[in-house]
This record gives sequence, structure tokens and C-alpha cells, in this order.
Amino acid sequence: MHTDTGSPPLDAKPFSVDEIPEVTRDDIDAARARLASRVRRTPTLHVQGGGFAGNTPGFWLKLESLQHTGAFKARGALNNLLAQHVPDSGVCAASGGNHGQAVAWAAKQIGVPAAIFVPTTCPPIKRRRLLEYGADLTIVGDIYDQSLLHAESFAREKGALLVHPFDQVLTIAGAGTVTAELCEDVEGLDTLLLPVGGGGLLAGALAWLRDSPTQVIAVEPSTCRCLGAALRAGRPTDVAVSGAAVDSLGPSRVGSIAFKAAQQAGVRHVEVTNEAITATQLMAWEQFRIGLEGGGATALSALVCGAYVPAPGERVGVLSCGGNVDIAALLGGAA
Amino acid sequence: MHTDTGSPPLDAKPFSVDEIPEVTRDDIDAARARLASRVRRTPTLHVQGGGFAGNTPGFWLKLESLQHTGAFKARGALNNLLAQHVPDSGVCAASGGNHGQAVAWAAKQIGVPAAIFVPTTCPPIKRRRLLEYGADLTIVGDIYDQSLLHAESFAREKGALLVHPFDQVLTIAGAGTVTAELCEDVEGLDTLLLPVGGGGLLAGALAWLRDSPTQVIAVEPSTCRCLGAALRAGRPTDVAVSGAAVDSLGPSRVGSIAFKAAQQAGVRHVEVTNEAITATQLMAWEQFRIGLEGGGATALSALVCGAYVPAPGERVGVLSCGGNVDIAALLGGAA
Repeated sequence: MHTDTGSPPLDAKPFSVDEIPEVTRDDIDAARARLASRVRRTPTLHVQGGGFAGNTPGFWLKLESLQHTGAFKARGALNNLLAQHVPDSGVCAASGGNHGQAVAWAAKQIGVPAAIFVPTTCPPIKRRRLLEYGADLTIVGDIYDQSLLHAESFAREKGALLVHPFDQVLTIAGAGTVTAELCEDVEGLDTLLLPVGGGGLLAGALAWLRDSPTQVIAVEPSTCRCLGAALRAGRPTDVAVSGAAVDSLGPSRVGSIAFKAAQQAGVRHVEVTNEAITATQLMAWEQFRIGLEGGGATALSALVCGAYVPAPGERVGVLSCGGNVDIAALLGGAA
Repeated sequence: MHTDTGSPPLDAKPFSVDEIPEVTRDDIDAARARLASRVRRTPTLHVQGGGFAGNTPGFWLKLESLQHTGAFKARGALNNLLAQHVPDSGVCAASGGNHGQAVAWAAKQIGVPAAIFVPTTCPPIKRRRLLEYGADLTIVGDIYDQSLLHAESFAREKGALLVHPFDQVLTIAGAGTVTAELCEDVEGLDTLLLPVGGGGLLAGALAWLRDSPTQVIAVEPSTCRCLGAALRAGRPTDVAVSGAAVDSLGPSRVGSIAFKAAQQAGVRHVEVTNEAITATQLMAWEQFRIGLEGGGATALSALVCGAYVPAPGERVGVLSCGGNVDIAALLGGAA
């Protein structure tokens, strides 16, 4: 494990909609074929009205927290490595934790080295797991974007394959397989609630549901609202990030692919408080004995706190994207 | 909450096979109809070979730990209360925790009082939840059987309906719905591994699978082996109980209905160590971010430690009966 305190200059990245690739259903179908029998087909739990919190409506919860590495990121990472030539110098990634674990895990599956760059906010449990997957770990920067600059430098210098956590077609196609599975398990979904960090899960869902009547609700913590800020500004823009889900929903700028897809779809966006997220994490343990990290509880918290109120009879799916929580700290904080 | 230190004399219960009722598929179908939309249809997770521990074969895991009250016992308890007249004095039960929670929860669902008697081994987290369900809680006896005697006295004196945790047709029929669901979710199961405490889950499975080619493997901790002792003795017999699963698999004598069914079916019985159970609980958290109590990890541990080794290609289902674990203590103990 290394700690690097130097910061390369921030790249100025011009935003041009024309250059932004589109993710298609075919990309997601190809990802499903690649990933079949290599990732877990995570189960979906039906919860009836009142069966979670007292006045929460019924919903279907996709338990992607049970995935390899504890998060949906395993799908996009492995899809990247299976679809491309991986150089001898291996792969690298920057990540607040889940994407880094996913790339390290995927690299281990196919037997190549992985260099992972994480910010100082990466919790100890995620650092430990990165090391267990055999990653070469560098802790650098206070936020994800600073770590990413270092990973990009590393990729240029060593010729390693950089796997982007959200703003790459193969990553998004992998993430889209989560929505594809949920739609297969639950017919006639009216609404899909999902959390937004950099937007990979969102872009994948929008690609899969492009010609479907299912509406997508993008849920962000009020202190990690890079999509909300971008939708208001009309282009991806930097925001300060903090709070209960910062370790998984912490990019300061939404991905360009996700932003373009969200803008074109006119996606509905709601925000939830950090208190609502933490309360939902605690409830998920009390009700289901499952661990959800802040980002993994964010979409569900919108139902719990009423940030999104379905109509009577509306069939609502919820994506729980990750379970990498320090459960003892979570429960200890509640005692 | 009360603590009662007196002990009524142990009843002498003669064992006569002729008087022992049989549970049928019809009983389980009736239970399914009663319970539909009142209990959770818990999901089943497919785990591929090597996808749990390094050399563990593939299996399907029924995540009954996600059930209301954190255990399958909710099914039998509610089936009892829905199928019978409940007197004004309400219901009562003795339980190391899970059955008590289930009866308290079921009583709350239909709006009647519940008096619950638990032994001193009942962990604090289960006591807290009993109180949250509104139960009148009495802590009495060092083991379950002593608590049961007090519950029986209470039922006689107050006219309350005693709900037995495992040796009653309605309880077993409720438990049998778990197996019915798993068989619906996974076609062509060759083998079903399940844990045995008093035998409710086992008796329900044997009733559902009576004319099926699916074989049932009864798994017991080596320090809670009331079924193993009974099969060897040719009749239910008392054993000392202790260890990692004693709070959920702790009856000192197997139920007469389960014993008769197990003997008639010639059920295969395997034992696992407490170390294997605890290691499996830790792995379930590491791999899936789910909480499993000792009893909930017992059947799975037989695959992990090799107490049961499936043939290549054998389709193996595993019942995870409960998730009521003190997760902070479990993980803290591992650190």
C-alpha cells in the first residue's frame, strides 16, 4: 500500500455532446452473454406495503449487494476485461472502493495484475478487501477525482488498461445487466428507483429501458448531487460531495454518457437526506438482516422518506447497488 | 420482563408412535393459502462452484433469514393463529428466541396478546425484539425445555393458546412452505440440506417431498444432536445442548412428529462442528453481506466443511433458516 500526496494538474475536459457514445441494448445483451455464469444472478425480494417501514408502499428490491465484491461494479469491471485485450502490465482503476474492488476481483478472475488508486475517504474495510483481492493499492487524494488523475498517469506511463468506473460503454453495459435481470424477474414494472453516483447504473438502466414504459427515477443524496447539479446547469459540473453515501456515490462530476442519456430521457431526479439513508440502512438490517452501504440504501430511502411516492398499485422496483458497510459501526452508532 | 426461578416437575411423556399425527402436502398447501401475502416469499440465490468458499460445490441457498422476524418460524406461528380460534387470553409460547419472536409477531398481526417464555440463553438482541413486538416476556430456565413447562402451566391456568415451536401439525405445515417454495424456484433438486433443532423444518420438508426423488439431508451441530441421538436410540431421547447454534437449534429432545417422519423416510443425518458453523457465518457476511445465525449457517456449513459432499452435477438446495445474529460480536470475535 502506498500513500501519494502529490497532485497532477486537473485536466480541462471540454464537454461536447456529439462525441459522447451511446450505450445500446445490444451492448447489454453482449455483456450478459460474457458475464453469464461468472457473476451472480442476484435475487429480487418482494416486500409488501407496510412490510418494511410502517407506511412504506410495496416494492421489489434487487439485492445486488449479494454480488461478488458486494456491489454491481463487478459486472462492469469484468465486462471490460473480457471484451478487450488486457496488456501484460495489467489493469488499473481509481475508485472510492467498490469499483476498485471490482477491477481487482475481475483481474484476479482472469489472472492479470491490478493497480488500484483510492482517495483517503476509502473506508478500512474496503482497503482490506482490495488487498485480499491481490491489488497493488495506492491511497492518494481526498476525493475520487484526484485518485483518477493518478490512475490515468499510471495507465499512460505503464501501458496498463484503465477501467473507468462509470463513463465507459463496457462499464455501463455491465451495469445495465442489473436492470435487465430485474425486468426479467418482475413483469410490468412501472417505475425503477436507482441511486446515482457517476451514473453508470443510471446509464445502463436508461439504455435497457429506452423503448419501455418503465420510468426511471434517479435518486441522489442531497450532499452527493452531481447529476442534479448537471441537470440544472445543462452540462456536467463539479459539486462538493460528502455524507452517508460519499464512499460509493462520491464522484464530484457525473459521467458524460449518463448525463446525455438522462437529459435525453428527461429522467426524473429526487434527492434524499443523509439521515434518511442511514435510517434505511438500519431498517434493512432490522427487517432483512442484510448489509447495505449508504449508496445501497439511497434508492430505497426515497420510498421510506417519501421523496418518491408511488401511486396506488404502481409496481416499483428498487436497485440496491452495494453492501460494503461497516455494519458494527452502523449498528453501534444506532445504540 | 419477568425472571422466574421456580421449576415445575418434568412431565413424563410416554412415546407412542401410533398417536403421532402425520403432516401431509394438503396441510402445507392449506398453510400456503393462509400465509399468502402475509409472509415474505424469500428469494433463492444460486451460488456456483467455488463461488462461496474455495472448494465448495455449487448450490441454491434459500434466504429465509430475510423472513419477517428473521427466521422461518414466522410461517408456522402465523399458520397456527390463522387456522385456530384464538381465545381472549391470547397466545403463549416457549422459545430460545426465534419461535417466540414469531408468535409475538403473529399475535401482533392479528391483534391478540402474546406471553413468551425464554431460557436464560436467549441473547439480548432476541429479547429486545420480543419486547418490540409487544410480547409479555418471562425469562425462566437454563434451557428451552424448562421454559416450555412454564408456558404449558400458563396455558392451562389462563386458557391461552399454546403454540408449540415444532411438534404440532400447523407449525410443521407452516415450516413446510419453505421447502415448497424452494422446489418451485429450483426444478429438479437432487438434495436438500437443512438444519435440525426440534425438527419442524425437517418434518415439513419430508411431508412436502414424500413422493419426490429429492433426498433430504438433516444437518445437526455436534453439540446439538437431538435427532442423531434419537435415530441411534430408536426413539426421542434427551441430550445436552450447547455451542454456536444452541440459541436456535437448542431443543434437548427432537419432536415426535419429526422423529417418526425421519425414521420412516430413513433420512440421512450428518453432523458439523461449531467451528465450521462459525466459519460459515463469517463467510456468509464476507461473500453476501447477509447475517446468518448459527442455526442459519448449519446446513450450509456441511457443504463448506465437507460433512456432505455432493456428486458432480448434483443439484443441491440449502435452507438458511434464520438471520438473528449479533453481527458485531460475530465480526468482532473474528478480528
